[in-house]
Amino acid sequence: MSRISYVNGAYVRHMNAVVHIDDRGYQFADAVYEGITVRHGRMVDLEPHLDRLWRSMGELRIAPPMLRRPMRFVFREVIRRNRIENGFLYIQISRGVARRDHAFPAAPLQASLIVTLKRLDVDGIIRRAEVGVKAFSEDDIRWGRCDVKSTSLLPNILAKQSAKEKGGFEAVLVDVQGFVTEGSSTNMWIVRRDGVVQTRSTADNILPGITRATLMRLARELQIKVVEEAFTLKDAKGAAEMFLSSSTGCATPIVELDGQKIGDGTPGPVATRLVEAYRKYMDA
Amino acid sequence: MSRISYVNGAYVRHMNAVVHIDDRGYQFADAVYEGITVRHGRMVDLEPHLDRLWRSMGELRIAPPMLRRPMRFVFREVIRRNRIENGFLYIQISRGVARRDHAFPAAPLQASLIVTLKRLDVDGIIRRAEVGVKAFSEDDIRWGRCDVKSTSLLPNILAKQSAKEKGGFEAVLVDVQGFVTEGSSTNMWIVRRDGVVQTRSTADNILPGITRATLMRLARELQIKVVEEAFTLKDAKGAAEMFLSSSTGCATPIVELDGQKIGDGTPGPVATRLVEAYRKYMDA
Repeated sequence: MSRISYVNGAYVRHMNAVVHIDDRGYQFADAVYEGITVRHGRMVDLEPHLDRLWRSMGELRIAPPMLRRPMRFVFREVIRRNRIENGFLYIQISRGVARRDHAFPAAPLQASLIVTLKRLDVDGIIRRAEVGVKAFSEDDIRWGRCDVKSTSLLPNILAKQSAKEKGGFEAVLVDVQGFVTEGSSTNMWIVRRDGVVQTRSTADNILPGITRATLMRLARELQIKVVEEAFTLKDAKGAAEMFLSSSTGCATPIVELDGQKIGDGTPGPVATRLVEAYRKYMDA
Repeated sequence: MSRISYVNGAYVRHMNAVVHIDDRGYQFADAVYEGITVRHGRMVDLEPHLDRLWRSMGELRIAPPMLRRPMRFVFREVIRRNRIENGFLYIQISRGVARRDHAFPAAPLQASLIVTLKRLDVDGIIRRAEVGVKAFSEDDIRWGRCDVKSTSLLPNILAKQSAKEKGGFEAVLVDVQGFVTEGSSTNMWIVRRDGVVQTRSTADNILPGITRATLMRLARELQIKVVEEAFTLKDAKGAAEMFLSSSTGCATPIVELDGQKIGDGTPGPVATRLVEAYRKYMDA
């Protein structure tokens, strides 16, 4: 069976899924996106993802291509047609197709909407969380509006690639003051030596992660204290534990940073509790 | 006659010019571009544009989709097929099509190449240079690699749109220290009260403009002194003259900045000499 994607009103074979070259997403990164984990055929945290998608469109003044209800229907239909139980649903909305000019087109545009689904290796993700991953610090050279989930991702891919070439799974982005901001596509957390979990505030030019918000809630239920405060790369290297969060990565312990062990170099107890709590939450 | 564009090996009607949604240019802004002015059927500064395109690809480690000689042929063929004498040739090269993942694909990719041509209103550009344009300052919130001409242009379009809504033709981007960096798609220049022309150094996280380089050479021929040094927004507002440069905009005087007249609010003598010299250069 071939993969089916949704592109601007039609369900098409993925190999035939195309957009016009004048789509502003292609020439200007004038587009926003979301990635939703599909687990047992169900979308995890669908509504918060839609909230954030609508917020991103609002910030860029992109007119939503459809209402939330039909959009939910499209998502479900893509899942149904692909017959995938565990997957990654990708949604991208661009301002639309227009003759190339930097400014927004004067006439209202029909925004472009694409939705794709690919299989997710859930076992691989679980295994990765059990052993933990290595990360490498990279300068955060991203723009000043990282709160908007846009496709302006070139700095992210360069950081990820650099970390990968050093043998890392993820980049830990560090700003000019030495503070950790995010990963290339994840939020970053540490567990301090006093047992308090610390993660940067979403008011601080980072993306408000959906998995981050869920983990905050789960931590509260587990009576794990979390503070939203920036930490430095040095803080991270001296932390008891470190982990990342993202929709596809869930919670994944970071056991080595820039070649230096975090804690004893294995997933710590606090991160492990959160990994398990999140897994239960996804499977519920 | 319908517009013809080149897309990945084929000359197609522009309305049918499409790329796959998994093109990394669409989902990651993992692409570089150039815009070349076509004047009397001839490409202005073709070789420097190709040099910069190759440099951009090199910085991002995108493998060129073809050699320079066949690429020049494609450019000429697009111009020929469109029968446009005065136009804007747009070239975009992305890393290629691959299953979505932030890091570069492991296997070598065939880079995507699109080339389009649209008619340029040369008379309008000349008229604009005669009366000058208004500009508005905007915070420069772009990323740290503005020397690479990538399609990660979301901050640029937001700045341009904001300036446009205030009644301006271009945004003057200002960094956190108060220094002018560039326009949203132009280089920025002032003429100081001592007659010296000043423009930011290309070593200073800005794009090395092709028109900028040509204007530097023309200024030298006219024995106009140019220094490459950053200037502040305050310097600009107190300058004798101000102008912008770009491949499509050539040299265009800025006569008003943030609602404040520059000089006497009309194109000054130094800018006017450079505008004319550049026009002659283009027509030569």
